[in-house]
Formats: sequence, C-alpha cells, structure tokens
Amino acid sequence: MKILAAQINPIVGDLEGNTKKILHFLDQARMKKADIVLFPEMAVCGYPAEDLLFFPKFIEKVEEHLDKIIKGSSGLFVVVGFPRTNPLKGQPFFNSAAIIHDGKLLGFQDKTLLPNYDVFNEMRYFEPAKERKIWNFKDKKIGVLICEDAWEHSSEITQTRYWVDPVNDFVKLKPDLMLVMSASPYYFKKRDLRTKVYGKVAKTLKTPLVLCNQVGANDQLVFDGNSLFFDKNGDLKQIAEGFLEDEFLIDLNYQENCIIEEDPIKDLYRALVLGVKDYFGKQGFSKACLGLSGGVDSALTACIAADALGSNNVLGLRMPSRFSSISSIEDAEALAKNLRIDLMDFPIDTLFQDFLDHLSPVFFDKPFGTAEENIQARIRGMILMGVSNKLGHIVLSTGNKSELATGYVTLYGDMCGGLGVINDVSKTLVYKLANWINRKKEIIPLNIIKKAPSAELKANQTDQDELPPYNIVDLVLEEYLENHKSIEEIVKEHGISAETVRSLVEKIHIAEYKRRQGPPGICVTKKAFSKGRIFPIVQGWI
Amino acid sequence: MKILAAQINPIVGDLEGNTKKILHFLDQARMKKADIVLFPEMAVCGYPAEDLLFFPKFIEKVEEHLDKIIKGSSGLFVVVGFPRTNPLKGQPFFNSAAIIHDGKLLGFQDKTLLPNYDVFNEMRYFEPAKERKIWNFKDKKIGVLICEDAWEHSSEITQTRYWVDPVNDFVKLKPDLMLVMSASPYYFKKRDLRTKVYGKVAKTLKTPLVLCNQVGANDQLVFDGNSLFFDKNGDLKQIAEGFLEDEFLIDLNYQENCIIEEDPIKDLYRALVLGVKDYFGKQGFSKACLGLSGGVDSALTACIAADALGSNNVLGLRMPSRFSSISSIEDAEALAKNLRIDLMDFPIDTLFQDFLDHLSPVFFDKPFGTAEENIQARIRGMILMGVSNKLGHIVLSTGNKSELATGYVTLYGDMCGGLGVINDVSKTLVYKLANWINRKKEIIPLNIIKKAPSAELKANQTDQDELPPYNIVDLVLEEYLENHKSIEEIVKEHGISAETVRSLVEKIHIAEYKRRQGPPGICVTKKAFSKGRIFPIVQGWI
Repeated sequence: MKILAAQINPIVGDLEGNTKKILHFLDQARMKKADIVLFPEMAVCGYPAEDLLFFPKFIEKVEEHLDKIIKGSSGLFVVVGFPRTNPLKGQPFFNSAAIIHDGKLLGFQDKTLLPNYDVFNEMRYFEPAKERKIWNFKDKKIGVLICEDAWEHSSEITQTRYWVDPVNDFVKLKPDLMLVMSASPYYFKKRDLRTKVYGKVAKTLKTPLVLCNQVGANDQLVFDGNSLFFDKNGDLKQIAEGFLEDEFLIDLNYQENCIIEEDPIKDLYRALVLGVKDYFGKQGFSKACLGLSGGVDSALTACIAADALGSNNVLGLRMPSRFSSISSIEDAEALAKNLRIDLMDFPIDTLFQDFLDHLSPVFFDKPFGTAEENIQARIRGMILMGVSNKLGHIVLSTGNKSELATGYVTLYGDMCGGLGVINDVSKTLVYKLANWINRKKEIIPLNIIKKAPSAELKANQTDQDELPPYNIVDLVLEEYLENHKSIEEIVKEHGISAETVRSLVEKIHIAEYKRRQGPPGICVTKKAFSKGRIFPIVQGWI
Repeated sequence: MKILAAQINPIVGDLEGNTKKILHFLDQARMKKADIVLFPEMAVCGYPAEDLLFFPKFIEKVEEHLDKIIKGSSGLFVVVGFPRTNPLKGQPFFNSAAIIHDGKLLGFQDKTLLPNYDVFNEMRYFEPAKERKIWNFKDKKIGVLICEDAWEHSSEITQTRYWVDPVNDFVKLKPDLMLVMSASPYYFKKRDLRTKVYGKVAKTLKTPLVLCNQVGANDQLVFDGNSLFFDKNGDLKQIAEGFLEDEFLIDLNYQENCIIEEDPIKDLYRALVLGVKDYFGKQGFSKACLGLSGGVDSALTACIAADALGSNNVLGLRMPSRFSSISSIEDAEALAKNLRIDLMDFPIDTLFQDFLDHLSPVFFDKPFGTAEENIQARIRGMILMGVSNKLGHIVLSTGNKSELATGYVTLYGDMCGGLGVINDVSKTLVYKLANWINRKKEIIPLNIIKKAPSAELKANQTDQDELPPYNIVDLVLEEYLENHKSIEEIVKEHGISAETVRSLVEKIHIAEYKRRQGPPGICVTKKAFSKGRIFPIVQGWI
C-alpha cells in the first residue's frame, strides 16, 4: 500500500489557491499509484486562520471548497484538514479531518487535544472531539490523529496536562495504520522531539504511522515540514524535505531505516530564510531594504534576505553618522560586495544636526543622552521607510532577541520594518549563524564578527557599557523567559550576581512597551516575544 | 445583614499594594459594621495578570498574600478572587474565589465558565470548576458566582455556547444570597446589558444578589466598576460608582428602587479618562505630550489627557508644515488656551525639505505621493519622541478607529505614542464626544468641529479624497468588524455600493500590518483592534 503525504505550503485564507494545490496533489497521487493521500491539519484554509474563522461567509466558502476536493478524490482515500462547524454547544468549530473515499465523504475525525498555550489559542475557536474512530479501507483499519492528539502520550508537554490520551484510546480500537496530520511549527531543535513523540505512538499502537506536517511560514510561525514515516516498531523509515513542499511517497513495505541529518544551526537558518521568503511571496512583494551598519545583526539579516529573495532584490543602505567608525562603513561595503546586493549611502549627520537645532528649545541645557541617540536611529528608520514608500521595498528590521529583551533598541528607529527577521534569535545564536554562513568561505567579513558589538550612537560606545556580556544576558533570558525561573533560582544555579539578574529582569519588564510596537518577528525558539508571550505593560511585579 | 462590596482598583502584579488595599477595606468593613466583604475577581493579583501567572514564584507570593488576607479577616465573612493552583490535570490554575470566615479559610469556589473569546483568553490559564457549593454564614445559605458564570443564563453571549449553566445548578442548591465577583470590562453601552444579565440571575434564584466588579484600567482594558445590588425579585436596588473605587455598602433590607443615570457618551468619556489616568499613574508617569494639529482627534485627546492628568501635566506641540492652514494653527492655540495646557511650536518645514534633499537620489524623478506625506508625519513623530525622551512625557497618539481601520494613518508617524487614546473610537463617536465636551461652554473651538477633516499632508487635502464619508466608513466597520457580515450582506442591507464596501474591507485587511505596530489603545467597543481581534497579516481572503 502506498501513501502520499502531501506536505503542502498553503496561504492562510486563500481557499481557492489551497484547493487548487490540493487537487494537484490528488492528480500526482493517482499518477504515482498511491492509495491514500494525507494532507496537513487545516490544509484547506491554512494554519492558523485565526479570526478569519469567525466570518460565516468564510466558513461557507471552506465548505464549498471541501466539496470540490471530495469531487476530485476519485480512486483515492483522502484525509484533509479543515475547520468544521460545530452544530451543538461549545466553541463554534472543530479542528477536523475530512475522511473521503473515491468521491464520497465518509465522515470526520475531529481533534481532541487543543493546544492553548504559547503561540496556540485553539480553544478560542474549537471544541474538542468526543470520540476516536476507525476507518476501514482495503484491508486496513485506519486511525486518524491531529497533531497535539499524539503529544500527551509522550509526556513531553510541560505547559498543560490533558485529561485524555487519544493514543491510549486507540489501543482498544486496534488500528493497523495511523495517519496523523499536523501544523507543527518549527522551533530550535524541535524536530528531534517531534520524531521521538511520533515514534512512541507507532510503538505503542504497533502500527505504521505516517505524519504529514504543514510547511511554510504564515506570519510569525514557520512550519518546517519534515513529515515522518515510522514502521510498527516505532523505527523511523523515511523523512520528507524540511522547509520545502514535498510529495512524500511512502511504501508501507519499505524496510531500510532512515538516518536524519543533524544540523540545528542549518535548520535555524533555513527557518529564517523561509520566514522571509513566505512573508514576502505570499503578499506579492519581492524587494527588501535594510540598514547595513557594519554590525553582525544587519550582516546576518542581509544574508538571510539575499537567500530568501535573491541578491538582486535586496538593497542595503549605509547611513553613517559622526559616531560611525571607518571600519563599520568599510565592512558594510565588503559585505554588500560578497552578497552582491546593491548599496546606497545616506549619511545622516546633517539631518541629525538639523533635528538637534530644531529641538534646541527643549534640548539646549541638557547633556547628550538617550534622546540624541534615538534621534539618529529614528532618522535611519525614516530614510528606510522613505525608500520603502517610494520604491516598494519592505524594510527588514535587524534587532536580535537579546536587544529586544533588554530594550537595547530604538522604538520607531531600528525597530522600523515590516518584519523583524532575527527578533527571536539571541546574540549567541547570531554569532553561531554568522560562523555557519562563513563555513566554506568568508561571506560576512570576519571583522564584523570579531569586533565588539556597538550601536555607534555616541562616541566610543559598546553594548557592554550598559549590558553584561551577551552570554550572561542570553542565559538569564532563557532561564527567565523560557523556564520561568525566579531571580533567586537563577542566581543560585548559575552563580550570577543578584544585582545583574535583577537588573536584566527589570529591563525585560520595562521594555515590554517597546516590544508591543515592534515588527512581527519570525518565531524560532520555544518562547518568542512577538507571539508566544502575553504580558502586561502596566504591572507591579518583578 | 450588611455587605460591603469592595470595588477596588488593583494594579496587575502588585501583590503587596493590592493586599494592602484589601486589608484597608476589611478595616473599613468592620468600622461600618458589615458582616460580609466581597472583592472583585482576581483582586489579589489584578485582572488580567496574563503570563505573569506562569511564574511559580508569582503564584507562591499570591498564596503568601492570601494568607495575610485570611489573617486580616477577623469578624468578617470574606470572598476574594485569586489564581489558585490546580493540583490535578487540566490547565495549571483555577480562577477562584477564596471563602474566608473570621481568620479561617473555608474553601474555594472556582469559576466554571471561562471566556475565551474577544479580549479574553482564560482557557490559556484556567481549568473550569467541576462543582458549585453553598456556604453557610449566620442564617444564610450563600452561593458564589464568578463573572461569566452568570452570563450563560441570560442567553446574551453570542461568541460561544457553554455546556453548563451554573445559575441553573444553583436553583437546586436553594441559596438565599448570591455573591458575584467580576472583572467585567467596559464597552460602549455595556452597563445596561450587565444590569439585565444579573437581574435575571437574582430573579431565577429568587435571592438577593450582590455583584462586585473591578474598577480601573489595566493596559487596554477599562473596568467600570458599577457594582450592583438586586433584591430577590431581580429589581435593581443600588449601584456603585462608575469609574471610581467605592466602598459599596449594602443593607439587604433596603427597599427603594434605584434609577440609573443614562448617558452613554459621558460614560465613554469617563472610560477614556480612566484609561489614560491609570496607564500613567500605575506606571508612575505624570506628564503627557501630543501633537495639536487643529483637528478634532487631537483636540479630543487633549481634553481627555487634561482631565486625566491635569492641565499642567499636558504639553501640546504645534508642528505646522507648508500644508498647514492658518486656521488649524490658530484653532490649536485657542484649544490650548481653553484647556490651559502648555503649547510649544516646532515648525517642520525646513526639516521636511532637508529630508527631501537627502532622499533625492531616490525621490528626484518621482511625483509627490505617500512617501512625502509620511515624511511629514514621521518628522512630527520624531519631535514628539525627542521631547518625550528628553523631558519624560509619554506621547499620546491621536488616531481614531476609523483611520486605523482604513490605514489612514502613518506608521512611525502619527501612530507614535505610548498610548493610542482614541484608537477604538470611531470618527462618528469622536464628534459626539466633542459635542458632549462642549455641552456647557465652548472648550473645543467650534471651528475644529465644523471643518472638513484633513491630514494636511498635501495641498487642499481632505480625508474624503480617499475615503467615503465617515458615516459610511463607520457603518461598514461596525457591520464587518463587530458583526462579521459579508460584503454582500452589507451591500444588501444598507444600500451602499459593492465597490465602496469592498474597497473599505480591502483597506481594513491591508492595514493589518500597521495596526500590529500601533500603540496599545483603550478598548471601548465590543471589538477593538488592539486586543480583541487576532488576525493574520499575510493572508489571501477578502
């Protein structure tokens, strides 16, 4: 028996385009003599469709498109995800799989476990399934799970504790094939965990298991694909492409074991590239511009953009001030040359002076400070936005997670942009990515990687004038943000001074108002600021 | 029997401050010979505490403070809201009421119905209660409900359909007094609905009912207080202050009926004033600055700010360009004089020219357009932020809901600010508020109200060059955003052309990326952009 896991990249809300893609994969399946075609969770409308679901017209159109898919299913057993209206009490929809055979709708398997933590808020829309069913096709008894349904069994979910384990329910139903659909977003090193989770399900149920995961970026979330096939022993037999659409064809009799390539930094880079590519492509934009300061953050962002959009679609702007070092200016040029991207120069010093003059009624008797630093960053933001408005480029913001966490960024300045490409990448990971990019040859000039980080907004400034070393910053961020540890615990476990930890946590809290107005970032860690964290601005806790 | 409904204004996360306030109200209750003291939902930590709940240290401290409240309860029956750890499966906490008597904790009544729509996401944190209980105190059998628990009974919730009606469960338990705690946010004309809902509960249960609602603004949400007391017939007997803390003392034997003052525009104004006052006060800020364009939006915002912070804490900036009319400049001055707020002038025309000169390598051969308009708005934003950074004022953004909806605002320009005071107020309501402010004497110069709205970013511009009249815009907004109607339905029901409706809906979708980076706004309608709506930026649906 052959199964095609159609690892597609849908556009949220583009019912017509997604359905066309689904019908195309059905054609491919017939050509390849597949018996079963499995699509990702919510394939018809894309995941997450968010409040689009609340428009009755939208749901009506989803149903129309599902009808087209049913009509297009001749000769095949098809499992496809879509939002199904809940006719009874509870939340208005089910997160559902339509089970289709040869032009006929057999029924539905709704999702049982609805993640409602971190970036997920499925309980806003969906009612949990009450039952698990078996579908008979040829000689097989097929069970269907949707994403989270498989995870409770692994005990790997720390954010909640479900009352039901759908996998255990299936033990009694004795399936001999499990089909799983998911829209499981990427985060750093998640693939290994996912592989472990699904392997355990196959092993418990003693059935082959095929997982079809969504691929592609939708706003801040990147879905990595990496669909999986396990045999009944829970051994991984095949893995689909990562970060690409894939017609993932599985023969249930396949015997060889599969070895996964391990390169988490490469995966992180690919996630960021896909995040940019789809943010632009799915909106019909092709060109990006960004400021090239000569620092490592903008260098990394430029590399990602060039890979995502093509070098000829990326425009770098050098915007030096009186505080920019010669080496920064030269490094930016060398980088642009290496990436073969266009470079334009807009020195900002006279504009800076103009602003200082204009603001002299307020500024005249006060020392140089944050206000003056921010003006420089904001002039650069304005120039980038001016170019964007005039030429149609989307501005890429280049702030990293360590800076956003501590507020070491300027609101309406370097925070300007349609997309914060590395918003969720700590400075530690920025360096790892930069070295990975240079693994074969020097693309990012070594000087950019080696120099002490500086915003160059005043004379002889470095980031470490105001912050501890980034390895300390990033350790505290991880413990505080991802692991919810207290200041006392962090001090005790890592031997960092209480003053340092407390000051960093205070900075994180105070910068909440800035992050609230930041560009959407690409989520690549377990706890991203821009989507997975809901935090008050005005509050009295530290 | 006397009940004190302690309508307090907590600061989210400020456990120490909130507990101090709670203990103070317990003292007051003893002084006033009250038997029972009822606090709002989540009074110990403030509502909504959001992801603060995920810090184990935070919950540990909540429990410590609850102990202090128990110790401080001598002689009283106390019902106080707090987040309670769920020791079993499900989400990690209960939204709970601690039931305390005379220094002893009697037990808990957890919340059963957890709103997870619009601005609410309680299922992210809380597990529903499994049972409803009766508490015996003196000769009374007391039942406790928490906010949403009372609403299913009214059939007034359209966003979800609960499986349980806790009020019906209580019918069997035969209480003779109902105590309800809530953190029920204000929206336009909601108080009447709330009164109807709770009156019905009292009537069904044939018991007196006391509701204690939170008051105060926490980030975007404003809680209006307006705590209620109904007799066993469901007749309203007393109502507490709106938009103020109140020691709301109830005598269960009170006989006279209560008549509520009806003035929804006044309530809206008070909500906005409280939104500003608490956003500043709870963070320890006192001073605001804003641009005074001579238009009605900034005039209204200035009035609200002056009432919230005091005239001497508000600084208006006039920032005229070559496109500013003389009358706008004069009107802004007249307004500042009427409000007795300071006014500073920062003409922007030379800076505008400087930017055009600097950007000439990109701009030189292209006609005047959005880019040039935005530069003016962004220079103003930079000046405001410069003053803010130097003098410590928080910038108030003055865009209204109709503009934010249609994208008729400049990102990083007039969208700059710590708080978008009238972000959720349509242009239609802006005029109603302006006229209400002028009800006794001319505070907002009449010319500001009468003139055609214009951004004055190019010659002879008016808003209606690009938008239909605002009464049409606002009607489409309400039908599309609040009522989720389709384009076809809006066309059919209101006789507006399909082209107009479609173009407005397109504008709403396209402007999503701007709103994502806008300042937090004060939510005052049933569907606010900045909190109650989760919508994709990159999507293919119209």
